[in-house]
Amino acid sequence: MKVLAICGSLREKSTNKGLLRFAQANAPEGMEITIADLSQVPFYNADITEQPAAVKTLLAQFDAADAFIFGATEYNYSIAPALKNAIDWASRAEGNTLLGGKAAAIMGAAGGMGSSRSQYHLRQVCTFIDVHPLNKPEVFANAFAGTFDADGNLTDEKIKENIRQQLIALAAWSKKISA
Amino acid sequence: MKVLAICGSLREKSTNKGLLRFAQANAPEGMEITIADLSQVPFYNADITEQPAAVKTLLAQFDAADAFIFGATEYNYSIAPALKNAIDWASRAEGNTLLGGKAAAIMGAAGGMGSSRSQYHLRQVCTFIDVHPLNKPEVFANAFAGTFDADGNLTDEKIKENIRQQLIALAAWSKKISA
Amino acid sequence: MKVLAICGSLREKSTNKGLLRFAQANAPEGMEITIADLSQVPFYNADITEQPAAVKTLLAQFDAADAFIFGATEYNYSIAPALKNAIDWASRAEGNTLLGGKAAAIMGAAGGMGSSRSQYHLRQVCTFIDVHPLNKPEVFANAFAGTFDADGNLTDEKIKENIRQQLIALAAWSKKISA
Amino acid sequence: MKVLAICGSLREKSTNKGLLRFAQANAPEGMEITIADLSQVPFYNADITEQPAAVKTLLAQFDAADAFIFGATEYNYSIAPALKNAIDWASRAEGNTLLGGKAAAIMGAAGGMGSSRSQYHLRQVCTFIDVHPLNKPEVFANAFAGTFDADGNLTDEKIKENIRQQLIALAAWSKKISA
Repeated sequence: MKVLAICGSLREKSTNKGLLRFAQANAPEGMEITIADLSQVPFYNADITEQPAAVKTLLAQFDAADAFIFGATEYNYSIAPALKNAIDWASRAEGNTLLGGKAAAIMGAAGGMGSSRSQYHLRQVCTFIDVHPLNKPEVFANAFAGTFDADGNLTDEKIKENIRQQLIALAAWSKKISA
Repeated sequence: MKVLAICGSLREKSTNKGLLRFAQANAPEGMEITIADLSQVPFYNADITEQPAAVKTLLAQFDAADAFIFGATEYNYSIAPALKNAIDWASRAEGNTLLGGKAAAIMGAAGGMGSSRSQYHLRQVCTFIDVHPLNKPEVFANAFAGTFDADGNLTDEKIKENIRQQLIALAAWSKKISA
Repeated sequence: MKVLAICGSLREKSTNKGLLRFAQANAPEGMEITIADLSQVPFYNADITEQPAAVKTLLAQFDAADAFIFGATEYNYSIAPALKNAIDWASRAEGNTLLGGKAAAIMGAAGGMGSSRSQYHLRQVCTFIDVHPLNKPEVFANAFAGTFDADGNLTDEKIKENIRQQLIALAAWSKKISA
Repeated sequence: MKVLAICGSLREKSTNKGLLRFAQANAPEGMEITIADLSQVPFYNADITEQPAAVKTLLAQFDAADAFIFGATEYNYSIAPALKNAIDWASRAEGNTLLGGKAAAIMGAAGGMGSSRSQYHLRQVCTFIDVHPLNKPEVFANAFAGTFDADGNLTDEKIKENIRQQLIALAAWSKKISA
C-alpha cells in the first residue's frame, strides 16, 4: 500500500512534519509512506497552462498513492494554505482520478486543541474531493506541551501509539473501501 | 474609510475579482477600496526571516485599512489558499494590530451555492484573527448563471444591488465597532 | 438491507418528510426503508433513568438498521434539533453499537442552499458517532422553487432522480463498508 | 444590562449549568443575568399554533434581554438540541426582534476540547439570527480535569477569571454595538 503524506507547514522544524516523519518510520508492514515536498509548488491558478515541475511530481505522487495522510497544520482556525493548495492542484485532474474514492488519515499538531479546527474543515473538503477520511482514531497533538523536541521530532509516547493505531486503521479502511 | 479588498482567485478573469472590481467602482461616498495584488506573495513560512517586497506592500495595506472585503473564492468546499495565505501573513503582526477589531464584508462567486461553504470557513477564521464580519447581507453569486460576462465582469443587477447594500452596511458597521 | 430514515422536521407537511417518503416508495430492490416517528421522543437528558416508550422504539429501529438516511432539515444555518436529538439518544448505547461503522445518506430541503449548511454540520457529527456518510451524490432540494406540492410531496423530476441515484449509492457503500 | 443565559444541558448537575451559575453570581456591576429554564420547552414545530406557557416565558426573556450567554454543551461534536431549539423558537418572531443585532458570549464545558466544536457551529447559527458573538475571550472548560465539583459547580480559578473577563468584554461589546 502506497501512502502519500502531505503537510501544511513549510518550515523545517514543523511539528506537523515531525508527526509525518514518525508515521513514515513506523508504517505497518506492507505500507510505504512518501512525504510530499511542497516547497516549490506554486498557488493553483487556472491561468497556468504549463504545470511546473514540482506540480508534475506532486500529481504523480497523488496518482500513485492508494491512500493519504494529511498533516493538518492549523493557521487561524483553518487549514494551512500549502496543504489546501496541494489538494486543489490534485482535484483538477480529469475525472478526479487522483483523489476519488481513496482513504485518508488526518493528524495534526497545534495549540491546546491540537489542530482540531483545521481537521474539521479538511473533512468538509474531503466530501467534495470524494476522499474518505478515517473517523477514528483522530490524532490531536498539543505542540506546546513537551510533545516534540526542538527540531519538531515527536517524543510523546501516547501520541506515538495513537499514530501507530491510526496507521493500522488506515490500512484496513483503505483495503475495505477499495475492494 | 479605507477598505482593503482581497480575492482568493489569482486568475485574471476570475468572477470573484469581478465582484471586487464592481465594489471598488461603486463604493459609497467616503469609502475608498484598494484591491490587493497577491500574485507575488509567497506562502507564509516561519523560516522566512526577511519579508519579500510583495508581503511588505500587502501588510502595509492591511495596516492602513479600516475594514476589509474578502472575495471568498471557493475551492473544494473551503477557502482558496491565496486569500487564506494573505490573512495568515497579516495575522503574524505583533499584537494583531493589522486585523484586530476591524470589520469585514464577505462576498463570493462559485457554483450553485455561491461560495457559501468557503464563506462559513472564513467566518471561523475571523473569530481567531478578531475581525468582525457583517452578518447581513450575505453575497452569494452563482458564477454559472449568466451573472458575469466572459471577462468576469459582474452583469447581474440583483447581485449589484446586493453588493451596494453590503457596502453601505459595512460602512455603518465599521464606524460603529471602531467608535 | 434495512434503512432507518430520520427527519429533522416535526410538522406534518414538511418538505424534508416528503423527501423521505419519496425515498421510501422508491427504494431499490432489497432495501427496506422505515421512517422514524420522533413526535413523542423527549430531549435527551442524562437524568432520565427510565427510557420512555418512544425512545425504546427508536433505539430498536437504530439497532435493526444497516444504514441511515438523514433528512437534514435546516433551522438557522444548522441541524434541526429533533434529528440531532434522535442521534444523541442513539449515541449513548454502550459501545456505540447502534451507530458505529454504519453508512448514511444525507438529503434535505430548505431555501436556496437546499439545507447544505445543516448537512455539513451533520457530517461533522458523523465523525464522532462513527457513521460513514456518502460523499456523493449530495441531495439539496430548494423548498421554494416548485419542487414540492402543498402537502410536501416531492414533484421535481431532477431531485427524484438524484434521490434514486443516492439510494443506489447507499446500498453499494453500506455493503462495501460492512464487508 | 439584562442578559439571558441559556444552557444546552437539561440535567441538574450539568457542568455547563455550573458555568452559567458562576457567571450569574459574578456579573459585573450593572449586568443582571437570568438563566432560562428549558425543562418544559417542547421542540419547535410549525404546526403548533398556540405557544405553550414555557415558550411564552422564554420568548419574553429573549425579548427583554440586551445580550445573551450561550452555554454551549456539546453532544456528538455539535450543539445540544435544547439550546438550539430555544434559539429556533426565538428566531421565529416577526422581524427577528428578539435576537437581531444583539451581542452574545459563548462558554462551554466538555471533554478535552472544551466544547469548541459545538461553539463553532453555534457561531454559524449566529450569522443567520444576526447575533454578534464576542470573538474573544473564548471560554473552553475541560469537564473532566477537576474543573468542577460533583454537583457541577465551577472550582477552577483560571476558568473563573476567564469568565469574569468574558463578562466584562460582553458588557463593552453589547454597549458598543447597540449604540
